[in-house]
Amino acid sequence: MTNLTILKLGGSVITEKNTPETIDETALDGLLDAIAAATTADSQLVVVHGGGSFGHVHAAEYGVSTTQGTSEAAAGATIHGAMKRLNQAVLDRLCDRGLEALPVHPLSAAGREENGTLSLPTTATAGLLEEGFVPVLHGDVIAHAGKGLTVLSGDEIVTSLADSLGATRVGLCSTVPGVLDENNAVIDEITRFEDVATVLGDSEATDVSGGMAGKVRELLELGAPAHIFGPDALGEFLAGAEPGTRIDGR
Amino acid sequence: MTNLTILKLGGSVITEKNTPETIDETALDGLLDAIAAATTADSQLVVVHGGGSFGHVHAAEYGVSTTQGTSEAAAGATIHGAMKRLNQAVLDRLCDRGLEALPVHPLSAAGREENGTLSLPTTATAGLLEEGFVPVLHGDVIAHAGKGLTVLSGDEIVTSLADSLGATRVGLCSTVPGVLDENNAVIDEITRFEDVATVLGDSEATDVSGGMAGKVRELLELGAPAHIFGPDALGEFLAGAEPGTRIDGR
Repeated sequence: MTNLTILKLGGSVITEKNTPETIDETALDGLLDAIAAATTADSQLVVVHGGGSFGHVHAAEYGVSTTQGTSEAAAGATIHGAMKRLNQAVLDRLCDRGLEALPVHPLSAAGREENGTLSLPTTATAGLLEEGFVPVLHGDVIAHAGKGLTVLSGDEIVTSLADSLGATRVGLCSTVPGVLDENNAVIDEITRFEDVATVLGDSEATDVSGGMAGKVRELLELGAPAHIFGPDALGEFLAGAEPGTRIDGR
Repeated sequence: MTNLTILKLGGSVITEKNTPETIDETALDGLLDAIAAATTADSQLVVVHGGGSFGHVHAAEYGVSTTQGTSEAAAGATIHGAMKRLNQAVLDRLCDRGLEALPVHPLSAAGREENGTLSLPTTATAGLLEEGFVPVLHGDVIAHAGKGLTVLSGDEIVTSLADSLGATRVGLCSTVPGVLDENNAVIDEITRFEDVATVLGDSEATDVSGGMAGKVRELLELGAPAHIFGPDALGEFLAGAEPGTRIDGR
């Protein structure tokens, strides 16, 4: 596909992370305005959003993570249902702005092997893109061989789709303005993990989907450049600029 | 997979087909009671339901069928949203009866090629089955190359999954007690389409997903026997008996 951007909206950015199932309306509106302003006929966009106070609260309640599973449908349905509510809120606001957005729920498409390897078929997402729609995916629970259901993080979706769909650019809109060095200054570019290994600790907030180190490691493996940037820089990123930290391991 | 049953609950059976978005509570409760009573630890079950007055009303409103598409996300979202409400009602009632049921929404998984050929990856459905869950799918809209979104009928899902998952038995719970001959008597068994070609017309009610002739033709192609039966015979079917019309083209 030509000119495909995969954009992740961090769950902590678009929700009030410490208040269950509460959207940060100002933040979300700002991001979606930027997306609407940047949309052109010859570009394709996939939006992926995290769980924030919708997914993580319930996942923590049931002890479900990317490696700890549940065999109770009710637990899975609670987490999945909360993520669908957040997804619907994002979809409604995108449609209000004239985007032809449709949901793709990972529980309906993906699965994990026993060793955790993700399989996320792209039939639906690629089909929707080709027909001019904007697929909107989200962190979710999915079937995991031998473990019931485990969490699939938005970040995993981004890296999986970037590879399988052959994304041109990947953007991760985060609460931080980029990957920070030991003086809290944004690192402009990361091309090798070794160069930043000493400064990357775990992410500060408890997050079932892992910290910055793992994120950088995965993004370095992609066949496309990835950018981690703050909410204010989304318009800049979508216009083709390179805000925040550019991560490119190619 | 061993002992996998794929069961279709007709949309006309579980909804009041002429009243928009209305469940036939008595009928649905009866069917789900029969499913709950028949569930055993060593059997796997996939439930597929049709659209009835949830899906068909909106599909007709927007002129969307298995061959006529829409490029408007809002139209697709309306049909998809209605089907999700029906699906949630089925899921809630299955969970109330102790079944570990979870949704699989075809829009998130499937797509059609330009010529209409369906691709429905089974990663999620097979993964959920293996983990002991009951996946519940439904008629939906899906991406269709060159046409935007078209309808995917519950019947198409059943035949696709029966092949790809290697079902042992397929059951279609319909408003009629089986395939009827020219005297309105149930035909016990169909093994070749030619034997029934003269008696099979179109289905009586308007249905975006085609009539009985096409249904029988597709079921004859399966690698497993299929049964078409009325709501009263579901318990009998799940207990291993052969109510209604047995269709087996092998």
